[in-house]
Amino acid sequence: MKIRGIEKKDRPALKTILKAQEHFRPAEVQVALELIDIALTKPDQQDYIIGLAEGDDGEILGYICYGKAPMTDAVYDLYWIVVHPAFWNQGTGTFLLRHAEKDLMRRQARLILIETSSLPPFASPRAFYQKHDYRELARVTDYYAAGDHKLIFGKTITH
Amino acid sequence: MKIRGIEKKDRPALKTILKAQEHFRPAEVQVALELIDIALTKPDQQDYIIGLAEGDDGEILGYICYGKAPMTDAVYDLYWIVVHPAFWNQGTGTFLLRHAEKDLMRRQARLILIETSSLPPFASPRAFYQKHDYRELARVTDYYAAGDHKLIFGKTITH
Repeated sequence: MKIRGIEKKDRPALKTILKAQEHFRPAEVQVALELIDIALTKPDQQDYIIGLAEGDDGEILGYICYGKAPMTDAVYDLYWIVVHPAFWNQGTGTFLLRHAEKDLMRRQARLILIETSSLPPFASPRAFYQKHDYRELARVTDYYAAGDHKLIFGKTITH
Repeated sequence: MKIRGIEKKDRPALKTILKAQEHFRPAEVQVALELIDIALTKPDQQDYIIGLAEGDDGEILGYICYGKAPMTDAVYDLYWIVVHPAFWNQGTGTFLLRHAEKDLMRRQARLILIETSSLPPFASPRAFYQKHDYRELARVTDYYAAGDHKLIFGKTITH
């Protein structure tokens, strides 16, 4: 397993991986694709940085997307960690997250934030963030929809 | 005083108004201008909607920028209410906010959110939001910078 940058030829595979996420709503797939397209067409921006996990046979296992939170001094948002369901529970998510955290250390990040939903299908991502020392810093009740709260998880980076 | 949509010829005046906001940091002026440019070049999107307040002599008094929060069912973010300092305390902010709220009622908004800073220069905007029934729903400590928290104000719309 290795990390590499994103290329135009990866887009169809990434779309397939996104559509295979049963807990994603269509709007989420669309927003995730928009961020991929920004990363592809404007490689020099640091709003949406993508790292891709590639298996030993060259297959794409998943990707991570993160970027600078506008108007902050050194806060980064972690937008998506997406792994193809066929490769779940094999450490790919952890591999992607550690790569992003190392990169963000280099970029002098002070705080990494992850927003997620309070609903049951998101219990597994929430447990994953908590295992990696992200703590709930704030929540906006009834954000995504009535009864579907936005939880803001965060991890402070010490340099 | 009347409300109208934004046109290309308004950009220099809006930039002047943004630069005259002493409590705005350069990064905030830049982000605000980016949203103005999206509204100008893609008038059909509903991510960044702009309403402009024009005085009786055709002068631009200020503007309001708001839009749909991605991945929510019917939540809108109110990004900026900006009034030229020469026209402060004459009701322009309230005029712009009421216009946006009426428009968002029509768009079936369920919740309107406003993010702001905890720092002293933002005491006046915070008091303005509270006067108009926005309440602090959540806060992210040390968001914009160490000691500079992000406050998320919100108002539920009843139809």
